[in-house]
Amino acid sequence: MSQPINKPSAKGLDVCLTPALIPLYNVEDYIVVVIDIFRATTSICYGIENGAEAIIPVSQVEECSAYLEKGFDYLLAAERNGEVVVGFDFGNSPFSYTKEKVAGKTIVLTTTNGTHALHLSRSAKKIVIGAFINLTAICNWLKQQDESILLVCSGWKNNFNLEDTLFAGAVVEQLKNSGFVVDDPALAANDLYNIAKDDLNKYLKKTSHSERLKKLGIEADIEFCLKIDLTTAIPILDGDRLVKLQ
Amino acid sequence: MSQPINKPSAKGLDVCLTPALIPLYNVEDYIVVVIDIFRATTSICYGIENGAEAIIPVSQVEECSAYLEKGFDYLLAAERNGEVVVGFDFGNSPFSYTKEKVAGKTIVLTTTNGTHALHLSRSAKKIVIGAFINLTAICNWLKQQDESILLVCSGWKNNFNLEDTLFAGAVVEQLKNSGFVVDDPALAANDLYNIAKDDLNKYLKKTSHSERLKKLGIEADIEFCLKIDLTTAIPILDGDRLVKLQ
Repeated sequence: MSQPINKPSAKGLDVCLTPALIPLYNVEDYIVVVIDIFRATTSICYGIENGAEAIIPVSQVEECSAYLEKGFDYLLAAERNGEVVVGFDFGNSPFSYTKEKVAGKTIVLTTTNGTHALHLSRSAKKIVIGAFINLTAICNWLKQQDESILLVCSGWKNNFNLEDTLFAGAVVEQLKNSGFVVDDPALAANDLYNIAKDDLNKYLKKTSHSERLKKLGIEADIEFCLKIDLTTAIPILDGDRLVKLQ
Repeated sequence: MSQPINKPSAKGLDVCLTPALIPLYNVEDYIVVVIDIFRATTSICYGIENGAEAIIPVSQVEECSAYLEKGFDYLLAAERNGEVVVGFDFGNSPFSYTKEKVAGKTIVLTTTNGTHALHLSRSAKKIVIGAFINLTAICNWLKQQDESILLVCSGWKNNFNLEDTLFAGAVVEQLKNSGFVVDDPALAANDLYNIAKDDLNKYLKKTSHSERLKKLGIEADIEFCLKIDLTTAIPILDGDRLVKLQ
């Protein structure tokens, strides 16, 4: 007689709307997807797709600088308040993460919001990096995992932002019929995505954040960050390094 | 020659999605509207409308009990996890706040989420209490104030919930053409309200929270809490007491 198959308890598909809310979750029960659409996680996905050997996320600009003294061929990337920090190779514009610039390299990266969310999620079962450019690839992989999933929006200075929430909603859209129990923030994110999906850029233009980004002269970055399924690589945290999921 | 009129700097209309995010705001710059639709702020609005002299919000059940010893004719109301605490007159069902029960009385109230949000907002310029039952009354009053407005959702155990966010979105709907600068959470709340407004109850039925409330047998409460413009009284915090705004 075959053993009875235990029905697994329901898997959760939850959305953490800002890093300030991470302490409300038992992060260790989840696979975490870190989201920072403008622009850290988009750039990380693009860099890993383009052959970067690893991207090392660090919290502080000083930690980033410290890698200079390690005598290794690191690229150093630091962004604060949307701008490249003086003295660094580049910030978090995806156009800095092309094949020519990053193939075979290790990049040390610190950004305003994205690395913060990542560090707060460190106790998760696995941490992967999501962006519109790898949306379907990451959703297909998530469907194959038998775990609860927490989508962590990096937000803006610990508060809610629309672009990260829309991406969370896009993931919910692809996963919601795969047997997950979906929490209130996930339902809200999914509804917002469905309002915005026909023209994400137009939808986001009404936000004050969009005005702020426009002043930084990064409209081409924004357009790139909203492109869907340009890439298939999934960056995953391995120790302290983000590498390509094999 | 008349004095030049100083153009006031833009007023903000901001939504704080959970009490955990209150520290991100300079609360002292705002008039705060505290929102806990299911069911604390609905009951407070209904009680004040029905002639309660005052409602005193306290954080702890023990503080609530302490009023018993003060030898005054207080009604004691305590709710935890959606249920009346044993030994108390009532919890936060709006049907406990009828004219017959509360007219002329002072009620000491502690609830899971609502009084928590209220206490964290204490440094605001003014604190008023909002619910669907006083929606238009409170919006009309807010339009007459020349101040930035922060709509504080009490949420559920410090996290986001849909019903409080929908009410915030309903307020944004009435105020958004009155010269406010609206933040990302307010835009999101407003979009969600516009999806849900034709049948709030139906929209909320998809949430897990709704399942939880159904188990508590309070579906009649829920229906009441979603009725719009039943009342016109606006509860305002005066010292440590919520009283009717005159």
